[in-house]
This record gives sequence, C-alpha cells and structure tokens, in this order.
Amino acid sequence: MSQLRVNPARLEDSIHKLARFGSNGNGGLDRTTFTPAELEARDWLKDRLQELGLELRVDQAANIWAKRPGREHSLPAIAFGSHIDTVPNGGKYDGALGVLIALEVMRILNEHRIETRHPLELVSFSAEEPNPFGLSTFGSRAVTGKLKRENIVGVTNPAGQLLAEALRSAGGDPDRFEDAVRRPGELSAFLEVHIEQGKRLLNRNIPIGVVTSITGIYREEVVVSGEANHAGTTLMEDRNDALTTASEIVLALEDVCRSHPASEVVGTVGRMTVSPNAANIIPEKVAFIVEIRGKTREEIREVLMAWESRIGKTERMRSAVVKRTIMLDQDPAPMDEEIVQASLRQAKSLGFPAYLLGSMAGHDATHMASITRSGMLFVPSIGGKSHCPDEESRMEDIEKVADVLLHTILELDRRLDH
Amino acid sequence: MSQLRVNPARLEDSIHKLARFGSNGNGGLDRTTFTPAELEARDWLKDRLQELGLELRVDQAANIWAKRPGREHSLPAIAFGSHIDTVPNGGKYDGALGVLIALEVMRILNEHRIETRHPLELVSFSAEEPNPFGLSTFGSRAVTGKLKRENIVGVTNPAGQLLAEALRSAGGDPDRFEDAVRRPGELSAFLEVHIEQGKRLLNRNIPIGVVTSITGIYREEVVVSGEANHAGTTLMEDRNDALTTASEIVLALEDVCRSHPASEVVGTVGRMTVSPNAANIIPEKVAFIVEIRGKTREEIREVLMAWESRIGKTERMRSAVVKRTIMLDQDPAPMDEEIVQASLRQAKSLGFPAYLLGSMAGHDATHMASITRSGMLFVPSIGGKSHCPDEESRMEDIEKVADVLLHTILELDRRLDH
Repeated sequence: MSQLRVNPARLEDSIHKLARFGSNGNGGLDRTTFTPAELEARDWLKDRLQELGLELRVDQAANIWAKRPGREHSLPAIAFGSHIDTVPNGGKYDGALGVLIALEVMRILNEHRIETRHPLELVSFSAEEPNPFGLSTFGSRAVTGKLKRENIVGVTNPAGQLLAEALRSAGGDPDRFEDAVRRPGELSAFLEVHIEQGKRLLNRNIPIGVVTSITGIYREEVVVSGEANHAGTTLMEDRNDALTTASEIVLALEDVCRSHPASEVVGTVGRMTVSPNAANIIPEKVAFIVEIRGKTREEIREVLMAWESRIGKTERMRSAVVKRTIMLDQDPAPMDEEIVQASLRQAKSLGFPAYLLGSMAGHDATHMASITRSGMLFVPSIGGKSHCPDEESRMEDIEKVADVLLHTILELDRRLDH
Repeated sequence: MSQLRVNPARLEDSIHKLARFGSNGNGGLDRTTFTPAELEARDWLKDRLQELGLELRVDQAANIWAKRPGREHSLPAIAFGSHIDTVPNGGKYDGALGVLIALEVMRILNEHRIETRHPLELVSFSAEEPNPFGLSTFGSRAVTGKLKRENIVGVTNPAGQLLAEALRSAGGDPDRFEDAVRRPGELSAFLEVHIEQGKRLLNRNIPIGVVTSITGIYREEVVVSGEANHAGTTLMEDRNDALTTASEIVLALEDVCRSHPASEVVGTVGRMTVSPNAANIIPEKVAFIVEIRGKTREEIREVLMAWESRIGKTERMRSAVVKRTIMLDQDPAPMDEEIVQASLRQAKSLGFPAYLLGSMAGHDATHMASITRSGMLFVPSIGGKSHCPDEESRMEDIEKVADVLLHTILELDRRLDH
C-alpha cells in the first residue's frame, strides 16, 4: 500500500475539465456560488462521484457529500474536500484543487480496491468565497451549526434574488436548513487541501505545506476626525488634517506588524475613504478598515496593543480624534496535532520535504475544526498569487500533496478510533 | 480730509441687507453665481449704486461697474471692489464685504462731496467662487482677457443650463464676451478688500492686513502603483502596498512644508482614492491630488524639490511606482509696491496696526494685477473660518479696514498719473 500513488495525468485532466465551467474571456473564472456556471460545475462533479459508485447526498445547505463505505460500519467517517465556487474573475485552483484531489483519492482507492476501516466522505462545500449574498464559508458554517435558519431568511443578493431560492436551485432546503448539521461522532476527522495563496513554500522551494493553525481575523473601523479648512489660507501649524493623521496611523500599523517577531502576523488597511475629498479642502474625516491576522490570539493582541499606544501618541501630537469600532474578532483555529504529525510522517516516508506553516486565509477547515479533528495541506502558489486569473500551482507539487493526502487518510484510518 | 471716516452703522446695515439674498435654513448663504438668489442680490446692489447717481454699467461678462467721475476726465480710473457670489452654504463676508466697503466708500465720498482727480469705479465681479459651470474668477478673467469666447461656448452646469443663457439672465452678452476686456490705460489701479480666511491677523490681534502677494497654486496628480494581494496570506515582507507608500508620501509633504522657513508655504492632499478599496485586499493603486501654495515661485519650487527627493527615497525603499502629472502651475501675483506703501502709510496715519502678509487664496486681484497696479487689504476672520455659515469678521476691524481703503484711494488719487 505504501507504493500507492495518485494518477497525476487524470488529476490534471480533471483540473482542466472543471475549469471550463465559468471560464470568462480574461483567462479567469466567474463561478460565484449558485450561478448557472457553478450549478453546471456541481452537476459535473456529481456525475463523476456517481460514476465511482459513491453514495451521493446533497444536504440542506447544498453541500455535496459522497460516501465510500468502510469495513467497520459503526466508525465515524473521515471527511476531506474543499469548495468549487470562485471569486469573480478568480482562478482554477482555489477550492477546486482540494475537491479534485479528494476525487482522485476516491478514484485511486477504487482502482486499487482498497478497503478502509472508516467510511470516507468527500465533501464540496457551498459558497466558501465572499459572494453576493454576503455569506462566505456558508456550507461549512451550516454543517458546524454556526449558521442558523434565521441568518438566511430574507437574505437576497443585490439583484434581488432570495438566497433561499438560490439554495433550492442547487439542491438545498432552506426550510430544513439546520438539518445540514453533522452531529458529534459522525466524523472522525476532516482534511482539506488548498493552495497556499502566499509565497512561503515557493520561497523555500518546498512542495508540501502542513498547516498548524488557521489565522484569527480581527477587523475594526477607524474614523479619524480633523477639521475641514481652506487648503490655501490655513497655515501648516493651524491644521488638523484627518488624512495626515490617518497616514501616520496606517504607517504605525505596518511598522508594528513588521517588527513583531512572528513573521506571519499581518496588518492591512485595504479600504479608506476621505471626506470631503476635494483638492483644495483639508480633509475633515478619514474612515478606514484595519484587518489584523495572526496564528494565535496573543499575536493579534500584541499587535493591537503596540498599535494602540502609537495611535495614542498620534492623537496627543495632532489633537485629532480617533474613533474605533470592532467589526470582527474571530479566533485562530489550531489544527489537530495528530493529523499534523501523520501528514509530516507521510511526507517524509514519501521523500517529500514538508514545511509547517499557519494559514493566513480563512477556510472551511476553520469551522470544521470546531466539530472534529481537522488538518490542512497546502500546495505552493506560483508567484504567491490567488483570486486572479494568474492563480496557478505546478503539477509536480500538486501530485506530491495529493500523495501525502492519500497516505495521511490511510494512516488516520489505521490509527483512529480503536 | 484726513478726518474723513466711513459710517460703520450704515456699512453694518448693508452687510445684513445683502445677506438676506440666498439665506438658507442653516445660517449660511446659497448664492452661487447666476442663481435666482444671486440675481436678486445683483438687483439690490444696482439699485444702491443708482441711488448714488453713479454711472452704472453691466459688462458682457455680467460684471457690475459703477463709475464716479473725476475732475480730470482724461485720467484712467481707480477701481475697487470684489464679488457677491458665494460657495454653497457659504458666509456673509467672503466677497460681499469687499463690494459693500466699496459701496460705503462711494457713499461717504458723495456725502462729503469730495471730488477726486481720477474717475473711481466700483466693480462687482461675476462668479469668483467655484461654481457649477466650472469657471471660477470668471468675471476678472474676462476683464483681463484670460477667458475667451471659446472657453464659454457650450459650457453647461450639471443641470444642463447653458452658461451663455445664465450669463444673459444677469445682463451679460456671450456673443460679445470679449468686449468685457478693459484696455491698457483704462485703469490706473485696482484695490480689493477681502476677509483673510486664515488666523494670522487674529493670532497677532492686528486689524489690517496689507497683502504683498497672492499665492501661486501648484497642483499635481500622484498615482502610486503597488500590487493587489490577499491581506491574509501575503507576509509583510512580500507586500507592495500602494496605501502605505502613499501614506509616506503624504506625510513627507506635510513635513517638508512644516520645515520650510516661509510659514505661508502650505501643501495639502485633499483628495485620495484607493483601489480596489476592499478590507481584505492590499491596495493596488492610490491616486491623490497634491496642492502646494506659496508667495513666490521659488518657495513652491523649494518645497517640490525637497518633496521629490523624499518620494525618490520612498520609491527605492518600497519598490512602488509613483507617477506624477502636473494639473496646474499658476504663478504668484505680487501686489504693487506703491499701493502696499500707501496702505501702510494710511493705516499708520489713522493709528491702526497693519501687518504685511501673503494671500494664500486666489482672488479677482490675482488677474487684475496682470493689467493694472493692484493691491489688497485683509480683514481678520473670526476663528480663521470661511466658506461656511460661521464665517464672520468683527465690525471694529471692518470699520478700520474700510477707513484704510478710503484713504488709500484718496492718496493714490493724489499721487498717481502726474
């Protein structure tokens, strides 16, 4: 069994086949959740799963599950998968790769008639990406009981389509939405393969990333209030310029994150608006959103505290008023140590270098970690790029990660639940 | 004649009367050029000028001129005035005060039957403020030949009204627009009283500002190009963040202006847009407008050079690309030394402290200085405020400046054109 390898040609072929759905003229994919292109992709996937003789099920949140029975019927399942929806003008790999590697794992197990102790379940989660209904990681939040029926009632996209309707079109059931929850004891483990969306593996020329933790995300809105005034007649010393104050606070965040010892701590101001935003008026108000991500709650707190003290200094020096409102404070999700160790062992025994790293993006595994032991494997991203037409990973890396997933599943199948 | 003083009660009364036109519910004035409120204000002013027996004329650019004959008919006129249009939700003083003091000067000369050598002309210029037709200092640019017929043909406001029509409604003549030009030798001098719109006089508790120069205005658009990327998965060291780069450039401008020895040099970033402007994407592009003002061309150049060297450093450190495009490069307009000296002498002989200062806002006098010797007097602004309902000046200061204007006109009348 240790000689078992996935079929890279078949895997590459399925990557190309799935990439037809939603392909736009710019080399990218428009396969936002519940759009016609995404529904076609779902149908293609369901056909492939049925061809394999798997027990296909679409749950109330329109997640696609495909079960391969285990020798010991009473054991909880080992699940693995990701998502097939994309951001607008996204790439072929984000999400899709995790589902297609899972498909290849099922194929190779069937091909070699390998019997596992645990039932295995492939899963393709609904609506992982930000989408026009404003609910990302929709499917995994439904499965883990974090999204309730009340959260989806009346929700529409900007075109006025009801989420409930869209969900039905994909085979979901909004009326029995909460039945999508997987009960404790139903799953023994969850594994997800995903592209890294960064350059850490690439820079180190390592094909396998073993994820130790999924980032926590902290977001707040900052509003800096200064005083609007004539840009000509107001001397520099008489100004209370909201934009120069905001600039100092933006640079302080960058500085604090750069000097934090954990290299994976990041802070970003991605969104900013200036008022009144006229060339000859000193800005009165600047509003911006700050996002801080870190592997642990402590890292995020350390950045926040250091940054807060810098904001305090800026406020005193400039007599501007800075108002801050927390928008999101999501804890980091540590990955299961047993799965991390199994992944490292399997990579080593396959002769592939592996690297332990934190995931700085959120994933379905963030939520799955709250109901079962979970683990993630990363594939290097060329140029660190994602969410764009240029998003790509090398087949030689993909193949290696697929082999590690396959053998990690088999090891977990042997070790768990005795 | 040295005992001659304006009538402050009458002047205050006319300030209140003119302020009725365009008064809105917020304590401010909506008297944008060529609106019904502004046309009513024009009619009120014309009535007052005719009551005084002045020779009233509305030129092709709808500027209002009122001539008081001089003893020596062949002499060019000494002109003085300002404008009566306001910005939206503006104040009672910006522009209006200069016209009403000019009116008071005419009244007091009539009352005391004072005969001057030169003809005197009061002028109220059309459309000095930014307006929906996109043409500020409209009237003075027409008079000085800087605005041609071709610049106004087909121009409309956002409501679709043709400038030509609006101009006709105020008594102008778009077909013979260029006849508004005052020919060389028609004017001996131009004087304008205006509110300071800053705090320099107020901070020094000095009632009279004698303007030495009107600011030059330099404007450029700066576009910083970085690289859009995932705000979670892109390590701080791998980022090319257009917003942190822009922040550094904005702060460098502030720093350079603050450390320049000329206290009146100012630099402002009033307008900024961030792309793609999403909380979880590192900004790819930040575009902003930089405005630099200074009393002399050299001051503006010095700021630009120091700032450019800082931009160069930032570009090298951050490997961002900074593209700059000049939008406006208007030279400073020095005021006439003879008028400056006459104003100082008259302030001194009246016993009022006076202060030499540059005007950091543009005015009709900027353009008038290109065709005749020109001078300006400033009245302190309470709180340095302008272009808002709170815009105000104290009557005790207004009265003093009016007296200085009156006696400066009389001194110039005696000294010029022998």
